[in-house]
This record gives sequence, C-alpha cells and structure tokens, in this order.
Amino acid sequence: MRPALPLGALVRGHTCVRTTTSITTFRRPLATMAPGLVDGAAAPASLPIAAGMAAAPVAAPTKSSSHVMHRHLGVMPLKAIRAEGCYIYGENRRFLDACGGAAVVSVGHGDKRMIAALTEQLNSVNYVHSGNWATDCSEELAEVLCAEANERGGDFARAYFALGGSEAVESAVKLARQHFVEKGELQRTNFIGRDQGFNGNTLGCLALGGHKGRRKHFEPMLASGAFHKVSPCYAYRHQKEGESEAEYVARLETELEAKFQELGPETVAAFCAETVVGATTGCVPAVKGYFQACRRVCDRHGALFILDEVMSGMGRTGTLHAWEQEGVIPDIFTVAKGISGGYAPLSAVLASRKVIEPIERGSKVFVSGFTFQSYSCGTRAGLEVQKILKSDRLVERCAEMGVFLEAELHRCLDDHPNVGNIRGRGLFWGVEFVADKGTKEPFSPKVGLSSRVVDDAISKGVVMYTGSGTADGVAGDHILICPPYTITREQLTEVVETLRAALDDVLAQI
Amino acid sequence: MRPALPLGALVRGHTCVRTTTSITTFRRPLATMAPGLVDGAAAPASLPIAAGMAAAPVAAPTKSSSHVMHRHLGVMPLKAIRAEGCYIYGENRRFLDACGGAAVVSVGHGDKRMIAALTEQLNSVNYVHSGNWATDCSEELAEVLCAEANERGGDFARAYFALGGSEAVESAVKLARQHFVEKGELQRTNFIGRDQGFNGNTLGCLALGGHKGRRKHFEPMLASGAFHKVSPCYAYRHQKEGESEAEYVARLETELEAKFQELGPETVAAFCAETVVGATTGCVPAVKGYFQACRRVCDRHGALFILDEVMSGMGRTGTLHAWEQEGVIPDIFTVAKGISGGYAPLSAVLASRKVIEPIERGSKVFVSGFTFQSYSCGTRAGLEVQKILKSDRLVERCAEMGVFLEAELHRCLDDHPNVGNIRGRGLFWGVEFVADKGTKEPFSPKVGLSSRVVDDAISKGVVMYTGSGTADGVAGDHILICPPYTITREQLTEVVETLRAALDDVLAQI
Repeated sequence: MRPALPLGALVRGHTCVRTTTSITTFRRPLATMAPGLVDGAAAPASLPIAAGMAAAPVAAPTKSSSHVMHRHLGVMPLKAIRAEGCYIYGENRRFLDACGGAAVVSVGHGDKRMIAALTEQLNSVNYVHSGNWATDCSEELAEVLCAEANERGGDFARAYFALGGSEAVESAVKLARQHFVEKGELQRTNFIGRDQGFNGNTLGCLALGGHKGRRKHFEPMLASGAFHKVSPCYAYRHQKEGESEAEYVARLETELEAKFQELGPETVAAFCAETVVGATTGCVPAVKGYFQACRRVCDRHGALFILDEVMSGMGRTGTLHAWEQEGVIPDIFTVAKGISGGYAPLSAVLASRKVIEPIERGSKVFVSGFTFQSYSCGTRAGLEVQKILKSDRLVERCAEMGVFLEAELHRCLDDHPNVGNIRGRGLFWGVEFVADKGTKEPFSPKVGLSSRVVDDAISKGVVMYTGSGTADGVAGDHILICPPYTITREQLTEVVETLRAALDDVLAQI
Repeated sequence: MRPALPLGALVRGHTCVRTTTSITTFRRPLATMAPGLVDGAAAPASLPIAAGMAAAPVAAPTKSSSHVMHRHLGVMPLKAIRAEGCYIYGENRRFLDACGGAAVVSVGHGDKRMIAALTEQLNSVNYVHSGNWATDCSEELAEVLCAEANERGGDFARAYFALGGSEAVESAVKLARQHFVEKGELQRTNFIGRDQGFNGNTLGCLALGGHKGRRKHFEPMLASGAFHKVSPCYAYRHQKEGESEAEYVARLETELEAKFQELGPETVAAFCAETVVGATTGCVPAVKGYFQACRRVCDRHGALFILDEVMSGMGRTGTLHAWEQEGVIPDIFTVAKGISGGYAPLSAVLASRKVIEPIERGSKVFVSGFTFQSYSCGTRAGLEVQKILKSDRLVERCAEMGVFLEAELHRCLDDHPNVGNIRGRGLFWGVEFVADKGTKEPFSPKVGLSSRVVDDAISKGVVMYTGSGTADGVAGDHILICPPYTITREQLTEVVETLRAALDDVLAQI
C-alpha cells in the first residue's frame, strides 16, 4: 500500500502547480482520509502533463494557503477555468466529466441557451422575496412539473421551490408533519428512513438518512426519537442466496410492517427512501415490486410515502422521474441537482393534492420558508432545462445511452476479479469494488480504494465520483458514473476503459 | 376588526388582477392567518390603482390556481417584472423596497456591475463540484473575508461557502462539534441558543433557535436533548424597571453560567446567538457589555462562541460585521443575505484558526458538504458585492443613513400611542407595536396587526417586512425596515411617513 503523502514532500507521480496564492499540492494524501466521511467527493487529482501542453512549474508542495474550507484541508483542488459540454477545462488540460459533480450536470456545461436564459433573468428580476412577489418563471415551472408528474399518473398540486437537496428533504419532512397536524393526527411524529440511505447533510436529513460515516460525529445532535430505520433494498449484499426477488421483497415488507407495529402504526407520519440510492451505496435500484410493497404498508397505516429523487430524478434514470419505473406514485417527492443542471441552485418538493388539502382547508400557511424560496434564477434555469430536455430528447437519450453504458461496463469489467457488482439505470451507474469476489469482502477502508481509483482516472483525464462505506457504512468502495445527458458513445467507452485502467493501476500499487 | 376574506368574494378595497393562468386574489385573508407561523413574510398586498395608471381588470377572485406552494396557499403574491435600485416594478406600478426581502438586498437591485460580473461567470465556469475543483472567485472571496475579519482583530483561517443561512448555521454547529471530536472532547454535545432567536428553518436550526411559532409543529422532530436555551437580551421587554444595563447584563451572565452548570460545563460545545436579533423580535441589538459577558462564560468553560450574522452582517448595521460594535470576536460566525445581496445564493461560515487547527492536525476533512458548496456564481457575486461596498462606501453609508433613519422614526412615531419601541442599528430597524404603551401589552395575535400594516404600506407603494410573535413567540407585532444600502434620505422619509399612515389606517379599521 502506498504511504500517506506527507505535506512538504514531493512524491513520485504527483506534480504540483503554482496557484495564484501559493504553491500547493494538488494531490490528496489518501491514506490520511477517514473513509466514508466526505460527501462522496472525488479526490482532487494529480495533474499530469497532457501531450502537447506546456509543463506546469513543479515545486515542492507546501501546506495549502487557501482560505477556502475545501473538502480536504491540506490539499488544493484543481482550478476550473471553463466548462463546456462534457468537458471541464483546468489550467493546462481538459477533463471528460463522467459524473457532473454528483449527478448535477444534466444538459451539459456551458449550454448557450441556458446562459442566455439566465442572462435575461438577471436583467429583469433576480432576487425578490416570495412572501410578496411571484415571478412568471416560478409559476410556469411549477405548472410544468405538476403537469408532467400528473401525465404519469400523479395528482400533484403544488411545487415548493428551495435551493438544495437538503432544503427540499427538510421541507418534505416538515410538510408531511404539518399535513397530519392540520388533519388533527398530532400523534404522527415518526419518520422511517433506511440504513445506508442519504437524504442530505443537514441534521434533519442526517437523522432521516442512515449512513454511519456521515452521521457518526453528529449522532448526539440528531433527533433519534423521531427518525427510525429499516434495511435498504440492496440485492447484491442483502438478498440471500437462493432467495427469489419476490421472497426478498416479502422479507423487506415484513420488516417495514414490523417497524410500523413497533412504533405504533398510528404514530408514523411517513416512510422516505431514495428511489435509486445515490452516493452512499452507489446507484442501487430496488428489486422489482419493492416500492409497491412499501406503498402498501404506508397505505395500510395511513402514512405518507415520500421518494427522494434529489440525485436520481429529472431524467437521469431514463425516465423523467425514477418512480415511473417502480409502478408507484409517491405522495411527496423531492428533486434537485439535474432539475437545473448546475446552472443555478434549485430543488423542488412536489406535493400531491392529498397532502396539500388539509393545509389548504386549514391554516393555509406551510410553516416553513427560506430566504431564496422560489428563487427566480433557479426556477428560470429549471424551466430552461425542461425545454432543452424536450427539444433535444435528452431523457430518451439517457435511456438509450444507459443501455450502451451498461453493455460497456459489463464488457470491460465483468471479468475483473475486484469488480463485485455493476448496477444502475439510464446514465446513473455504480461499480462496486471488492477484495474477494466470492465472499464479497470489501477492501479495508484504510486503502481508500475508490478515492484512489477516481484520483487515477482524473490523472488520465476522466472525472468520476468516489464513494466509500458502500458495504456497511464504513467499509466498501464504489465509483459513480453519472455524466451529462449529452455524452456520446465514444466518450462513454473512454470513461469505461479509463476506469478499468485506473483500477488496474491502483491495484498494482497496493 | 375586519372579517376574514372569504375566497370567492370581492371585498371592499381589495382588487384583483388577471394573471397568466387564472383570476386570483392578490390579498391575503389576514384573519385566517396563524400569527407567528410564517417566515416573517410580509403579506401579499392589495394592488390599488396608482394615479395615471390603467385600472387592472377587476373580477370576483377565485381560488388561486397557482401550482407554486406560495407562503399563503389561497393568495397570489404580486408579480415582479423588474427591479432596479430601491424599486421593484409590479405589473402596473412600482414599489419602494424598504426591506430588500428579509434584509437581503444590499447594493440595490439590478446593479449593472453585478449583472456584468455574473454574466462573465456564467460564460466561464458555473457549476463544478468543490471536491475536485477550485475557482478563482471562491479563493479570492475567502481571502478577502478572512483578511477583513482579521483587520478587525480576528484570527480567521477559513471560509466555508454554502447557499443559504440555514446551511451556514447547520455547518457552524457541525464544525463546532467536529472541532471537539478532533480534540478528543467527545462529551461536548450540547449547544445553547436563545429563546426568541431564529437561526434558520431546517430542523437543526429550529432546534438551536427558540421561536415558539416556528418550532411548534415540529417540536417532536427536534433534537431537544442537545439544544438548550437561555433568555434573549431584549431590553424593551426584559430589562426590569430600575435595573441598570450593567445589572441586566449581570443577570443574563448569571443565567448563562447557570445553564452551563446545569448541563455540565465540560459538555457544552458552543453558545450561539444572533448579534442583532433579526426577524423574530425585530432588529433587537444587545445592551452594552452583554456579548462580552457571554464570551467570558464560554471562555471560562472552553466552549465556542458563535455569532449568527446571517441577517445582520455584511455592512447592514453600519460596520461590516455587527460584532465589531460589541467588543468581542467570535470563534465562528455566519453570514448570508447581504453577502451576495440577492444576486446569487451564498452564505459563509468564517472559522478562526483555533477552531480549524484540531481538524487540520487531525482528520483534515470536515465531515459535511453540500452539492453547491463553494458555488462559483455565489462567490463571484459575493466578491463583486465586496468591491461595490468599498468603491461606493456603502458600509459607511449604512451608518450615516442609519442615523437619519433613526431620527425620522423617532420624529414620526415617538408620539404614537401604539408604537412601543424603536430599535436597530445602521439600516436595520424594528418598530414594535403594542396595544398599551404603559403595560407593553401586545395586540391579540388574531388581529394580525403587523401583517396588515405591511399590507397597507404595500398598497401605498412601500414594501416592509412583517413579524409577529415579537413579545413571547406567539403574541406581539413588529415591522422591519432594512432597505438596500443605497436608499436616499428622501426615500427613508417616504418609508417612515408611509409606515405612520399605514399604521393609522389599519388601526382605524380594527
């Protein structure tokens, strides 16, 4: 195993670049990382010199003098100069963006239509407070979102616009609670989430989700009395040998029912799950029938059924909403990331008529609100993304390219002794690494395998997204491939072949 | 008292306007509002016909058909078409913006320099993930923010950039906790906030803050075991008759010390307070010496001292940071709103070297992160606001105009039988209404006084910010005046005289 990179030392293969402020290392000292404790962030990569490009000045790295609280305090990330289509341009080379941040970039970087729309919005109305002011773009986007969800069988009445995924999930939880308060069911204070689920990084979202690494330090500050967990639906690790999908679903349904009974079914406000689990276990879709089973349990006890599509929603899985592939319609669902494709912060909570009606009949006021609620540039970006998704048939493209990506992943990686599982939907795929394919034993967290694979891939010019704690919240490694919807077949092949090469190169070093 | 406005009825004085989607009422049915339960949002106002402007079509209002989850579900806010300087333009008249949303707009609306900077940023780099990528604007803004705070006596090492105030406060709390985890002081799990304080609307922020109305529905979902409260420093209501400021401070210091002792001083991670309380009690500054006393208690027991300047920071009080006027330097402080002036979502957590060092020496990774952490358009907006604050001397202007505004408020309102208290700093002022000036008895929450005053002021062309629950979290009314820093003396006089007229007009109706 490679030793930790000491600050102040120049290690083979790790070049350094002079920034505007100081000489800093662009390499994360991996072995010092606490695995599973970052926001699934891919590691800052080394910056090799691409053919035909001038060499960056090389000097002994010093402690980063940045005043930004970067994700790793000892290391400067690469500097982004420009981004266009599927590429991000650093100071002296370009990188193929195979993850769009954390599945954020949908219509591609630097789309001229997006920039034109936002420039127009900046020149008319930017920030106004949603207490007094409405804007055409927010009205229109809400109308489009509800209409689209309703064309898919829903009965959605309202969209609540916030900035990020955490704000959306916090709002969904509060909305579910207020729904029952207004109905007079004050005893419904319990929420059921899932182990290994991730619903955001605020304390409320961490309480709802179940990723050990991210919760660890903050457990004493989480409202554990109101938030409870059941097992995830994660077939690769938890479906038993010889157990059919139907039997696995039945087992999970029984567990969820038992959790309702344990809490008292009349005390449960909602069950919440990511339709396709994102960063914590790496693009894990549920097995067939699972969400219908969850919906049945919720309906049986009058609890709300909330789906979190912050990461998986808005086309990424090959349908506009990931829930379309599950044969269920949620009472509330959240979207973010792809909804505005990174052009402006935006998240949304879609609420069905059933959820809203008691509030409309009652106080009429949802007791929550954020400064940038219904932020005009956010909703304008969301509206423009909707137009581009339609005009460029990008959701359909996600589905088509997903079939190709899946085949490429299997072609390149099925025979690899350390690739345990390949899973995903559309342009949302995870590859899970294992030390032993037979036992599914993960690598030791000390190896920092997935971060190193992503680092190596970035050094080869392709950006992926790292994840750890895959197996149990602490051990386990995966990478995510979730590129802009505009990626080509050739680029996908480059991504997959780079992944294979990076994995092999890292494994050769440990 | 005016009766509730039934949907479907046309009430005297309330006109309606045809929107793009349907006929909706632009008037909030005030008496149906649950006081204290909105995010201090000023009410959507009626839209009287300004002189010389064409009358809007009047029709019987119907239920709002908007799909946006507006702050009141039965009523459409006014539609904003354009905003420039201190004015927001509706469909057929302009409104003087005397609150900038909730103290958000700092350099004014539609500033061409801001728009040019953001347009340039959109055309270079918009969204990239902070795990892999740095941007010049984030680096530069962090450098400027730390340098400025350090010129004022601080020793700030890092700025953490998020989107909204809630994300910032959540991050500050998590950072304080991780600081102690890395120091090995795992027992420090308790946080002390203040009654009537507001630190944001996520469940973690609601747990830290202490506004009854906003917490009420969600109490069962708050981590009450970790978050505790002491009294606010709110002289108008809580300084006893005959008690000197020094005695009042001593009493509050004793209370805070007692809270530390009750919890076990070694278990307290941090005390957190708004330097000037914002929306919940209406621009209430502390009395002289109070924050020095709080700092003393924290220092005595090794707890961190956190100041929340989400609303009061970045020049609004007449100094760049509100804490400059208190003779203290916090270990961590949060800013938002004015930092980017509404041009893009941005908040920041400034952390002192003392807070960061155990993490830099330890795991090096702050175990938190958001999708839009270090968002380039946000930090670019923040950087441009900094430039404009300096070039246009806007912080100094806040101080100067604040002196004028204070004098105008006293001139126009001191003799009013229902104006209990006028308090604030810079361009951040609150006016508290009372039913009885002698007893300080508030109006019944059923009256919805402050919302109605704001509604009336908007009908007169001036937008202010409403607040209720001022006295005890449920009863009590105030309005906030917190305009763009560019407001003129003439405009301030118009604001204050409109407030007087609106107050009198509303009182005549009840």
